[in-house]
Amino acid sequence: MTEPSFSLATPDGDDRSRQMCDRCGFVLYENPKIVVGSVVRHERRILLCRRAIEPRRGYWTIPAGYMELNETPEEGARREASEEANVALHIERLLAVYSVPRISQVQLIYRARLAEPSFSPGPESLEVELFAPDEIPYGDLAFPSVHWALRHDAEAEAGAPPVPFTNPEGETATMMPGGETVRPGDF
Amino acid sequence: MTEPSFSLATPDGDDRSRQMCDRCGFVLYENPKIVVGSVVRHERRILLCRRAIEPRRGYWTIPAGYMELNETPEEGARREASEEANVALHIERLLAVYSVPRISQVQLIYRARLAEPSFSPGPESLEVELFAPDEIPYGDLAFPSVHWALRHDAEAEAGAPPVPFTNPEGETATMMPGGETVRPGDF
Repeated sequence: MTEPSFSLATPDGDDRSRQMCDRCGFVLYENPKIVVGSVVRHERRILLCRRAIEPRRGYWTIPAGYMELNETPEEGARREASEEANVALHIERLLAVYSVPRISQVQLIYRARLAEPSFSPGPESLEVELFAPDEIPYGDLAFPSVHWALRHDAEAEAGAPPVPFTNPEGETATMMPGGETVRPGDF
Repeated sequence: MTEPSFSLATPDGDDRSRQMCDRCGFVLYENPKIVVGSVVRHERRILLCRRAIEPRRGYWTIPAGYMELNETPEEGARREASEEANVALHIERLLAVYSVPRISQVQLIYRARLAEPSFSPGPESLEVELFAPDEIPYGDLAFPSVHWALRHDAEAEAGAPPVPFTNPEGETATMMPGGETVRPGDF
């Protein structure tokens, strides 16, 4: 079997260049991807997963991942939590819509709580733990948007109106709150 | 040049079957697509476009379309309105997040108003018109979610809290409000 071979070209009837197969002309229409995830509470503690896979292996994150075909965003958020932490969720509402245009990603993040107080690491997690708000390992979070989601969830918990948050003003997820630059591939 | 030829198979290290090229093994990772659009007001009237393309050629819709790579949802909604109706928008807020899992679509619909009172049909529109609320051609709207968005925008205008709407209870965009079934391909 040969290797895939694509080149940029503008298909007939289109107004943008796309990746096209050099052999058969197949057009790869690439569109932004949707990440679905949740800030999961049990009583006053928050569920985090330590990543077993790259990017950012060993860092803590909320359960989240790419939405799959033929599911709703809420179903996707429940599936990701089930896969990464073996938990069942009650989803409460949409917490935030974040946008990371650099990597063509839109993130739909929900507020949720554990349906039952049981959890364990799935194949993509090294550990799963419940953290009291003042115990969250802020220095070891995986992505800028995990910081945003935890901060926005805390604001929601403190009584902010139930309007979804968006990216903090001017932020595009290129930098961690401590000033550390996100390396390409770390998204 | 040969024709594209794909078959369903499960790639190494994956847990789902995907479309794979029979010649080079290229894996087509298909994910849900994001539609970005807006209910656009000018004074108390609402901007609608009559579609010049299939599906639903000749029917009225709000400016909306597939989000492209490297843009934010708001930029995408402004681009679609510019392409379809030659308008510049002020986007006010997120009106609704709809989900159509049958066709793996998530729709982010914004409330917007015209930055200037000028508009004209772009290449994908036969006509563009401002309609007073009681003149909207409800019998000739293109898609179920156009009905939803116009109803939800009216509720927002009437003072509903600024929390994004979701699909009407139990609805998955398979039927127009009059009971007409949406044909496959009409989405």
